[in-house]
Amino acid sequence: MQAVGLITEYNPLHNGHLYHLQRAKQLTGADCSIVVMSGNWLQRGEPALLDKWTRTQLALAAGVDLVVELPVFYATQPAHLFARGGVEILTALGCQSLVFGAEHPELDFAQLMTALPKTQAAFKHYNATYATQFNAALQQTTGVTLTKANDMLGFCYYLANQQFGNQLKLIPIQRQVADHHDDQIQAHQSFASGTAIRAAALQQAWSQISAVVPAATLTQLKTQRLQTWPDFWPYLQYQLMTASVTQTHDYDQMAEGLEYRMKETAQSATSFADLMTRAKSKRYTYTRLQRVATAALLQLTATEVQTAQQHNYVRVLGFNKTGQAYLHQVKKQLTLPLYTKITKDLRLHGLALDYRAGRVYELVNGHSQDLYRRPIMFPR
Amino acid sequence: MQAVGLITEYNPLHNGHLYHLQRAKQLTGADCSIVVMSGNWLQRGEPALLDKWTRTQLALAAGVDLVVELPVFYATQPAHLFARGGVEILTALGCQSLVFGAEHPELDFAQLMTALPKTQAAFKHYNATYATQFNAALQQTTGVTLTKANDMLGFCYYLANQQFGNQLKLIPIQRQVADHHDDQIQAHQSFASGTAIRAAALQQAWSQISAVVPAATLTQLKTQRLQTWPDFWPYLQYQLMTASVTQTHDYDQMAEGLEYRMKETAQSATSFADLMTRAKSKRYTYTRLQRVATAALLQLTATEVQTAQQHNYVRVLGFNKTGQAYLHQVKKQLTLPLYTKITKDLRLHGLALDYRAGRVYELVNGHSQDLYRRPIMFPR
Repeated sequence: MQAVGLITEYNPLHNGHLYHLQRAKQLTGADCSIVVMSGNWLQRGEPALLDKWTRTQLALAAGVDLVVELPVFYATQPAHLFARGGVEILTALGCQSLVFGAEHPELDFAQLMTALPKTQAAFKHYNATYATQFNAALQQTTGVTLTKANDMLGFCYYLANQQFGNQLKLIPIQRQVADHHDDQIQAHQSFASGTAIRAAALQQAWSQISAVVPAATLTQLKTQRLQTWPDFWPYLQYQLMTASVTQTHDYDQMAEGLEYRMKETAQSATSFADLMTRAKSKRYTYTRLQRVATAALLQLTATEVQTAQQHNYVRVLGFNKTGQAYLHQVKKQLTLPLYTKITKDLRLHGLALDYRAGRVYELVNGHSQDLYRRPIMFPR
Repeated sequence: MQAVGLITEYNPLHNGHLYHLQRAKQLTGADCSIVVMSGNWLQRGEPALLDKWTRTQLALAAGVDLVVELPVFYATQPAHLFARGGVEILTALGCQSLVFGAEHPELDFAQLMTALPKTQAAFKHYNATYATQFNAALQQTTGVTLTKANDMLGFCYYLANQQFGNQLKLIPIQRQVADHHDDQIQAHQSFASGTAIRAAALQQAWSQISAVVPAATLTQLKTQRLQTWPDFWPYLQYQLMTASVTQTHDYDQMAEGLEYRMKETAQSATSFADLMTRAKSKRYTYTRLQRVATAALLQLTATEVQTAQQHNYVRVLGFNKTGQAYLHQVKKQLTLPLYTKITKDLRLHGLALDYRAGRVYELVNGHSQDLYRRPIMFPR
C-alpha cells in the first residue's frame, strides 16, 4: 500500500478541503490518505472552533483513511516549525507524497529553495521577522517574494522535507479560494475561506454555510459547542494577572519586553480583542500575539516546547479499515513512537503538553479530549 | 490621643464584634480605636464573603475610628504569623493596647509564654504541626494545652508583642460565642459564630441573621455579591492543571509532595469541596489545604511571601474624624510606610501581592479593589 499525506487544520472541514483530498488521491493514485491535523489549538494561535474528535470524524466521513494529531508544540508554531512537525510525521509513517494547496502552485519551490543560504542557520530559531528575513534572502537571490500564507507554508514543506531526507514527493495544487483571508462567503460559490465560514458559523448563518461545506460539517457546527478566544479570555486574563514577570517572560514565542506589555495590558483589558488591539504594535504581528497568548494560556514555556519538538510522535485520532491496514503495515518500521491512547505515564510525560492543551480546551468545551478516548473507527 | 488596637477579619461584622469593640473602648478608655483587618483573603484560606471596602464601611459604621489592612502575606498565614503582622502594624501606629477575644481569657498568657523555649527557633518557621509542637512544649512545662483557636491566637499575640518590644498592653476578654465553630444560629440569642452567619447568608436566611448582626451588615449581605471558594474554583482548577510541578511546589505553605497530590486531584475534581475532600489526609489539616489553595490561586510563592513579610506597611482603608486626627498625630513617627492610595510603583512593587490578591478577587466581585480607591471617610 502506498500513502499520500496532507497537513491540515480543518477549522472546520469545508469544500476546499474536500477538493484538496480528492486531488491528492487522483494525482498520486495512493491506496491510503493520511491527514496530519492540528489538535485543539491552531497555527494562528487560537482554539479550534470544533474539537479534534469532531474534526477527525468529519475528516473520516470525507474519505480520509487515517487521521493523526499534529502535537500542540508544532501546531501552534510559525510556518517553518508547523511544516517540520507535519513532514516529520508523514515521513515517519512512510508516506510517498505530500499534496498541499498553494496560491501559486506553479512556483518552482525546489528551485527557490536552492537560492537560500545553505546553512539554514538563520532559520533554526523562529522570531517575529522569520518570514521577512527569509523573503529578503529569497528576493535578493531570485527576485521572488512569497507574500501568500500557503505559498510560504509550501516552501517550508520543501525545507522540512530536505531536513528529513527528501522522503516525500511534494505536490503543490491550486487552492480553491482566491484569498485565504477572504472573509465573506460569496453567493453562488461552492468554496469559501475558513475565516469566512467561522464568522458565518458564529452568526449562525447556516444557509450561507450550507453551500460551502459538506452536510456533516454543517450538522456539527449547528450542534456542537463552538470554541473561540472569548471563551478562554477569563483564564488568560487571570493568568497574565497572577503569573510573575519571569514566568511570563518564559512563555513560548514571547519577545524581550513583551511580557511587561502583555501583563500590563491584561490588567485593564476588557476582552481578548481589546488585549490584542492594545498589545499590538509594529513590532509584533497579530498572529504572533495570538500565539504568545496561547502559550500563556497553556503555560507553555519556550524550553518545554523546544524539548518536546525533539520528541515528536504519531498520535492516532481515527481511521477506517484502509487506514488501519496501512498502520498495521508500517507500524514495525515507524521511526517515531506510536500512541493510540493516553496512559498515566504519557499524560505526565510523553503527551504532557497535548494533555494540558486538551484539558484547558475541555474547561470550555466540556468533553474529555484525551482521557478515556480511543481512536475513532470509521464507520463506527 | 491614645489608641486601642483590634485585629479582626469581620467576615462579616456581627454582634460579637460590636461587643469586642465596645469592651475594648470601655476597658482602655482610649480616644481612638484602630482595627487591623484582613483584606479579601482570610486566615482560614478563603475569600471574604464581602469585599474589604464593604467591611471597612461596616467597621466605621460600628464605631471603629481607623481601619487598616492586614496585608495578604500575613492575613493568609498560620496564627503566629497572622498575629505578628497585626501586632507589628498596631505597634507601628503607636497603639497602647490590644484587646482580643479568647475562649479562656482567664489564662495567664504571659506566664505561659515564659514556659516556652527561650530561643523561639522552633517557631520561626510555620509548618503543619506548629500548634502541635507548641502545645507539646506547653503541655510539658505547664500542663496546659491550648485547644481553642482564639486562645491560641491570643498566645501568639503575646509572642509577637515580645518580638516588637512589648509596646502593647494585651487585654484578653471573653468571646461571646461559646464555640467559634458553632455552625448554627441559635434562636433567641444575639450572638452567633461567623461560620453560622456565613452559612445562613448563603442560604438567604435573613430573619435568622437579623438577630445576630447590626442592621448595616444585614443590608450589605442582602445587596452585595457574596464571594466563596466555589466562585474561584474554575481559576484554581485551571491553575493547578497548567502550572508545572516546580511552580506548584513553590507556592506558599506547600508541603513536600503535596504539589503532586494537588495537581493530580485537581485534574478530576468536580468542585472546590471535592478537591479539598480528596486532597485531605491525616498529614494536612483542612485549613492548611485551603491556605495552600489560596496561595496557588494567587500564585503566591513561599519566597515572595517571606520577602514581603520583611516589608510590612500601614495601608489605610478608612477612618472618621477621630481616626484621621490620630493618623495625623502619629504619622511622623510611624515605623512602617504609610500607604493611602495605590500608585503604579506600589502596584508593581510595595503593594504587588495585595494588588494581585485584589485583582483575582475582583474577577468575581466585579468592583475595583485597589485602583482608583481612596480610604473611606466616615461619615461620607
